Amino acid sequence: MAAMTMKNAFAPRHIGPGVADTRAMLAATSVPSLETLISQAVPKRIRLERPLDLPAPASEAEALAELAQKMSANVVLKSFVGLGYHGTHVPPVILRNLFENPAWYTAYTPYQAEISQGRLEMLFNFQTLVAELTGLPVASASLLDEATALAEAVGIAFRHHKEKRGRIAFAGEPHPQTRAVVETRAEPLGIEVDGDVVDENTAALVVAWPDTFGVFGDHAAKIAEAKAAGTIVIFVADPLALTVMQTPASLGADIAVGSMQRFGVPIGFGGPHAAYCAVSDRLTRLMPGRLVGQSVDTKGRPGYRLALQTREQHIRRDKATSNICTAQALLANMATAYAIWHGPDGLQAIAAHAHDLAARLAAGLKAKGVTVLGDRRFDAVTVEVPGRANAIAKEAEKDGRLLRAIDGDRLGISFDETSTEADLQAIAALFGADVPEKAGRLLPGKAREINGFLSQPVFHENRSETEMMRFLRKLADKDLALDRTMIPLGSCTMKLNAAAEMIPVSWPSVANLHPFAPKEHAKGYRSMTDDLERWLAEITGFAAVSLQPNAGSQGEYAGLLAIRRYHAARGEPHRTVCLIPSSAHGTNPASAAMAGMDVVVVRCTDSGDIDMDDMHAKVAQHADNLAALMITYPSTHGVFEEGVKDLCQLIHDHGGQVYLDGANLNALVGLARPGDIGGDVCHMNLHKTFCIPHGGGGPGVGPIGVAEHLAPFLPGHVHEGSSHPVSAAPFGSASILPITWMYIRMMGAAGLKQATEQAILAANYVATRLKDHYPVLYKGRGDRVAHECILDTRVLKESAGVTVEDVAKRLIDYGFHAPTMSWPVAGTLMVEPTESEPKRELDRFCAAMISIAREAAKVTSGEWPKDDNPLANAPHTATETLASDWRHPYSRMEAAYPAGDPDTTAKYWPPVSRIDNVAGDRNLVCSCPPVEAYLGAAE
Amino acid sequence: MAAMTMKNAFAPRHIGPGVADTRAMLAATSVPSLETLISQAVPKRIRLERPLDLPAPASEAEALAELAQKMSANVVLKSFVGLGYHGTHVPPVILRNLFENPAWYTAYTPYQAEISQGRLEMLFNFQTLVAELTGLPVASASLLDEATALAEAVGIAFRHHKEKRGRIAFAGEPHPQTRAVVETRAEPLGIEVDGDVVDENTAALVVAWPDTFGVFGDHAAKIAEAKAAGTIVIFVADPLALTVMQTPASLGADIAVGSMQRFGVPIGFGGPHAAYCAVSDRLTRLMPGRLVGQSVDTKGRPGYRLALQTREQHIRRDKATSNICTAQALLANMATAYAIWHGPDGLQAIAAHAHDLAARLAAGLKAKGVTVLGDRRFDAVTVEVPGRANAIAKEAEKDGRLLRAIDGDRLGISFDETSTEADLQAIAALFGADVPEKAGRLLPGKAREINGFLSQPVFHENRSETEMMRFLRKLADKDLALDRTMIPLGSCTMKLNAAAEMIPVSWPSVANLHPFAPKEHAKGYRSMTDDLERWLAEITGFAAVSLQPNAGSQGEYAGLLAIRRYHAARGEPHRTVCLIPSSAHGTNPASAAMAGMDVVVVRCTDSGDIDMDDMHAKVAQHADNLAALMITYPSTHGVFEEGVKDLCQLIHDHGGQVYLDGANLNALVGLARPGDIGGDVCHMNLHKTFCIPHGGGGPGVGPIGVAEHLAPFLPGHVHEGSSHPVSAAPFGSASILPITWMYIRMMGAAGLKQATEQAILAANYVATRLKDHYPVLYKGRGDRVAHECILDTRVLKESAGVTVEDVAKRLIDYGFHAPTMSWPVAGTLMVEPTESEPKRELDRFCAAMISIAREAAKVTSGEWPKDDNPLANAPHTATETLASDWRHPYSRMEAAYPAGDPDTTAKYWPPVSRIDNVAGDRNLVCSCPPVEAYLGAAE
Repeated sequence: MAAMTMKNAFAPRHIGPGVADTRAMLAATSVPSLETLISQAVPKRIRLERPLDLPAPASEAEALAELAQKMSANVVLKSFVGLGYHGTHVPPVILRNLFENPAWYTAYTPYQAEISQGRLEMLFNFQTLVAELTGLPVASASLLDEATALAEAVGIAFRHHKEKRGRIAFAGEPHPQTRAVVETRAEPLGIEVDGDVVDENTAALVVAWPDTFGVFGDHAAKIAEAKAAGTIVIFVADPLALTVMQTPASLGADIAVGSMQRFGVPIGFGGPHAAYCAVSDRLTRLMPGRLVGQSVDTKGRPGYRLALQTREQHIRRDKATSNICTAQALLANMATAYAIWHGPDGLQAIAAHAHDLAARLAAGLKAKGVTVLGDRRFDAVTVEVPGRANAIAKEAEKDGRLLRAIDGDRLGISFDETSTEADLQAIAALFGADVPEKAGRLLPGKAREINGFLSQPVFHENRSETEMMRFLRKLADKDLALDRTMIPLGSCTMKLNAAAEMIPVSWPSVANLHPFAPKEHAKGYRSMTDDLERWLAEITGFAAVSLQPNAGSQGEYAGLLAIRRYHAARGEPHRTVCLIPSSAHGTNPASAAMAGMDVVVVRCTDSGDIDMDDMHAKVAQHADNLAALMITYPSTHGVFEEGVKDLCQLIHDHGGQVYLDGANLNALVGLARPGDIGGDVCHMNLHKTFCIPHGGGGPGVGPIGVAEHLAPFLPGHVHEGSSHPVSAAPFGSASILPITWMYIRMMGAAGLKQATEQAILAANYVATRLKDHYPVLYKGRGDRVAHECILDTRVLKESAGVTVEDVAKRLIDYGFHAPTMSWPVAGTLMVEPTESEPKRELDRFCAAMISIAREAAKVTSGEWPKDDNPLANAPHTATETLASDWRHPYSRMEAAYPAGDPDTTAKYWPPVSRIDNVAGDRNLVCSCPPVEAYLGAAE
Repeated sequence: MAAMTMKNAFAPRHIGPGVADTRAMLAATSVPSLETLISQAVPKRIRLERPLDLPAPASEAEALAELAQKMSANVVLKSFVGLGYHGTHVPPVILRNLFENPAWYTAYTPYQAEISQGRLEMLFNFQTLVAELTGLPVASASLLDEATALAEAVGIAFRHHKEKRGRIAFAGEPHPQTRAVVETRAEPLGIEVDGDVVDENTAALVVAWPDTFGVFGDHAAKIAEAKAAGTIVIFVADPLALTVMQTPASLGADIAVGSMQRFGVPIGFGGPHAAYCAVSDRLTRLMPGRLVGQSVDTKGRPGYRLALQTREQHIRRDKATSNICTAQALLANMATAYAIWHGPDGLQAIAAHAHDLAARLAAGLKAKGVTVLGDRRFDAVTVEVPGRANAIAKEAEKDGRLLRAIDGDRLGISFDETSTEADLQAIAALFGADVPEKAGRLLPGKAREINGFLSQPVFHENRSETEMMRFLRKLADKDLALDRTMIPLGSCTMKLNAAAEMIPVSWPSVANLHPFAPKEHAKGYRSMTDDLERWLAEITGFAAVSLQPNAGSQGEYAGLLAIRRYHAARGEPHRTVCLIPSSAHGTNPASAAMAGMDVVVVRCTDSGDIDMDDMHAKVAQHADNLAALMITYPSTHGVFEEGVKDLCQLIHDHGGQVYLDGANLNALVGLARPGDIGGDVCHMNLHKTFCIPHGGGGPGVGPIGVAEHLAPFLPGHVHEGSSHPVSAAPFGSASILPITWMYIRMMGAAGLKQATEQAILAANYVATRLKDHYPVLYKGRGDRVAHECILDTRVLKESAGVTVEDVAKRLIDYGFHAPTMSWPVAGTLMVEPTESEPKRELDRFCAAMISIAREAAKVTSGEWPKDDNPLANAPHTATETLASDWRHPYSRMEAAYPAGDPDTTAKYWPPVSRIDNVAGDRNLVCSCPPVEAYLGAAE
């Protein structure tokens, strides 16, 4: 009988190649063992010489049982807390076919438009939904949460005024966490967040719609003042309320932001959810984050793609409008699917339900003589019960209901889709009140007419489950995700998102806890986050970890902020110079700018390493004001730079701190630790190295680890009694942290280390197999690459006029998602195969790349013209390939099945041919116009 | 704001057309309202004039909460009961990507081979797995459960001996429920199930391997006797044990059966699971149920399809080898995926684990002086503890472990994949025993060598999760299921399987309870089944319902058995004549034959109705011996026959009972009740009318309702202290009953009635739209059809030589699963659109059918030759359509996109062209030969 030791071990499931395949890959790479390879690739000086101190690995079943047990310590009451987080029913058809469907959640950010039409279409619908709700013409494809969305909106206003106006004012108090994040973000930029004065120094007026007490104030006069002063008017508005109200635009808003959570996305102890952001036309190019636009393909067919990318950090660096490079695509898509499922009438019915309960409670309480704040409300009632608030809240808890105890004298009760008549009666009874059977409308302004609201066909055609199920499948089938092919993206680590890791996210104990529930209700979550902080600290070699940053960019920002605050606390606030190598990802300088730092670029050598001469010069030049160095390790060129420890020492010697970008942490785990190397801060992308799926463009999670001296400067949270938060919720995107917990728990120290080794092997295997066809750039020591390799496709450009884009698009015909294109080196492809890809798939990829080189050779030889060959024409749609008129010099089968696949059904057919980016940016279309004609279909 | 009444109502989600579309469909059908249509189609005499007495409908969230609450009353202990039901880990990758994936579970039985290659391939792998385990060459694509599989095996032996040998013998005692089902099934056939005598009157020797006490007896001599007597040797064998033992074939088995449950299928309170059945070559054509065979398509490519269908009941009627027409495809596919995931080494490790625990416990107990039954065992230990069994079992329960209390003196302990060292220690401690750290092999015979076992590539290539996920997706993509298209199958009611209905099946409280747990542990299940029995009795108008039959065929059998036993109890055992109209489904006569009845066929008129003259004649002729009439209502031709009440009266007047086949119940629910019409028994297909998905060919569930006087004759169960079971578990496929519970709970009386009305509307809409192109056969009163319609495609045969098969296969090019072909009328298509299909999809289907008629017209006109047109050549694969050489008189786009679809990515491409059934049956290949060469890949 077989050995028992490996029974149910997870690591061999996570890692693609088995023992025999690994042996074959080592042989092909001319190396006798994994250990030899690692010793060739990774400098000995930085190696961790002991196993990570982590619990012994658990099987899938054991880990699931352990986590379920842990999470059962959460006390999940029915929430009436509100505060931006509301009960909502996730429609089961969306839960099963979108949220729990790998075709949706394993997809990458839709940079390659041709293989992303499904999720781009859904995000376009999201933008349409937001435009309809807000009345503003341009909506982005989502931001991280309401609080950061407001901070981003303030940033728009700040930049709109050329950074000349230094104050923002409030009309109505926003939620405390929202205000706190805005304060965090405003401070480094020198923006005052204070008072309600609107004058020529006020960049923005923020209208809380409603305010944190659920009250709509009368802000017309203030808004008029703002208009007169040229102040940007920002509404923070509840999108469900907007379904039954006049639009913010009609009330004067230039920008509107808010959380789409209550559109069918579980509360999840704070996230992830999608925030929305919409702006008036004149602010379009200042808007942060991703924007989906409609363009055309080479045949003139409409096609979606990310628009105006030149706004983004990876192009504009420290001049970017924001450092945001993760959206919440999966959650935005869920919210959109929810709106499509319910349609305008359904959404209004849900809004009416919540409003009706609140209006009746307010009426009943007033009749009983209880003081109720404000007259105009949507779904929430805030009462004054001097000295009795806590007692009443406790009484409610006994019956399983969680109210918002604002302080000893005030209570908030917020209703939502899940609230029932029984809830209303029980809550009224707490006050000894009776509620009337009806109550009038308490919303300000006119009711929104159903006519013309969300009249686009998509919000009417998918109202039966059969249609919704097929709609979701049809969109998913337009896209290529990990469930069909490898996604060999340099620097993005598209590894397996195992089902066992994903399952807990749907558990009620994980999905339904309110982020501001009393601490004693969140013991399960706390125990899980404690584990995770401890494990990540051990993995990175740091003293403390914060899980709050809900994107990599947020992690960078939080890390730089910690450095900023550290210097200030030491009386050196003048230390603001941040050195960044020219090879750095564009987010780095953007984050530094947001953290109030002055970016100084350090040159790189031709071999891709940092130019140490320039480094020394810059350090010397800025020694007095040196705040930090930001480096990526291994480098963005995929190389383990030898001198990294010396470099860190150099910075420390000059009073600076070292920020280590964790984008490439997948090459380090178990082999070396950022903290040991000399980093003071490092962010980890849990959505890269630690198995959180990319969700088609978000969520991301970017915790940071810091050395002991920086620990006091980690992000705090008002709910924890501390300050300087960077995200709305104390633990950011808490509900997906179990994915990482499961991964680490199942892999154990040895599994994690092996994964890193296998990732490095896979990259070296690909590099070895392809090196005779494409020069491999920036090899490091031992002629080895780290976990990714740069293939120089410029050789094809020189010989055949074949561009890197041609190669990327041709890979689609072969059934692949293209590698990272033209980054970090223009004209090249960066390939990160990850440890999860089986040898079969690596071989299929290598075969495709070699075949493409051969195709290019036919262009070189003149067999195929430069302007008519399968590379130039790629990708090929079915329509073109089946056309009666085929005049290309290559066959239809060569066009569509270049690898000669025996299984023709497995073929991925792109819905469009190459998309024209320029045309789309020239004529920006980013939402679907209302179609009055469709009203009849709305039932 | 919108009205609140319909908020979250499920019925409008289940029903495809909304209000506006329904209005349009009524208009097209020239009828002012649904009520008018129903009054035209359904005879007033049979109409139910009151609403069904059912609970008011609950929303999805409410129903889920209510059922969760109910099921929380189950006490789910860790089971060591065994008895054919074992703990097993469902690999999360299989749970998520197969079991919870609509592409797998909404698929229909793979009769249309070209759109079923994915699940056929998986079932072929299942057959290969079973052949490898048993050593027998021919394995079927699964049976219902171990008990019925053994009964079927006995049937094979019985028929092999031309029904001349009337006795079966046992070598080792099988599980009590297995023996009981065999006894039920043997009695009507006059087979004695008794003793261990093997002689020339013994049809079969059944070897329990191991026996119900977990012991492998020494049966070599008895098997030799059987061989000498020409007796068929049947092994009932645990498949996990077989991974580490010699094969039954090598020990003399002619047939082997057993349950594949422990291969990764949840216990689920008894089912559904797949049973396996394998036979020696000479018994192939006697084997019941489905068999997947390999054949070739028109281009010579290998393709799978159901083989030897001429064996089956729908062809051979009362001469069939069995009445089984449902397999457990979904569960067989899960079990196969489990074997693929673990591979031979993994399966052996799991077996070794269970064996090791049992061997160590046995050794420890023996050392302590406890009497342990037998010496040779796999995973179970049975002990004699006179007078102490219950006390020890109770003690174990306190710690959360459920043992098998056989009687007051004996206890059974069965280990499995989920058992742990801690379990072993705790159980030993109950007896005051210590266990040794090691124990020797206690299995009989030689250990199975890993070399050569499951050496087929599929069991080695998909061992990482990435590969498994892609493998499952690739197979699913080869098939057409409800997530992509309507499946308009006459008589098979392929309606929506809503996600909310499916979700509870995965709950631990539903999935993990043992069917023989003490009754007080199953209160949740009992409460759910009580509801369901009550609701189904109300819906059908009967006094009592049994949920036990785990397929429609089982329901028919159980119903006829009740009639048989009723007559016998009244002293009229001679009543054995069963009248069956010639239009009846072939299962009817097959079931009657199995129930020991003599089938007498009654003619039908040309209009499809029963020929009442012949009926009167046959009733008169057989008055003294009349047992039953079996009718389908509405008829198999889709017509509400007017005289059904009179007919029932006629049968009753002559001492007979009326069996009403519930295949078409979807046309009755809420409008009329079988019990009111005059039926004494009726079976319901929960997998048709009540939303249990077809699973790609099973599971099915076929409860029966009976009138008061038949209630005492419903199936009993040994676990309930009663007899005459028809299935292994008391509630048959208990774990999927929540699907039906959810459906009824969410629809309520009005929703169910509306669904029936809309189903009838949909059929009449399709009939109306197509009647100018295809004659609609067998219209009933008011020129209306019921819930399905027969389209006479023979007009195309006459005019253009286009066969019904051509039309069916051409529909694949249009992206449809073909309707039922040539049943009940040869050369026609029967279409049942169901209430769940949206108007858009009905219109797409009608457009395709009309387009096909136009295509045929081009053949008639001579524009296209009879032997080269898109109908004759359908379906078209990508390979053919893209071939450089295209000499057909129609274009490539006409071949592949006949509807001119704008969205070319949504296209379904068949993996093969038309499959040659004859070739496959001539040269039967039904499992994959072992491939020694693949050993190296096995790690």
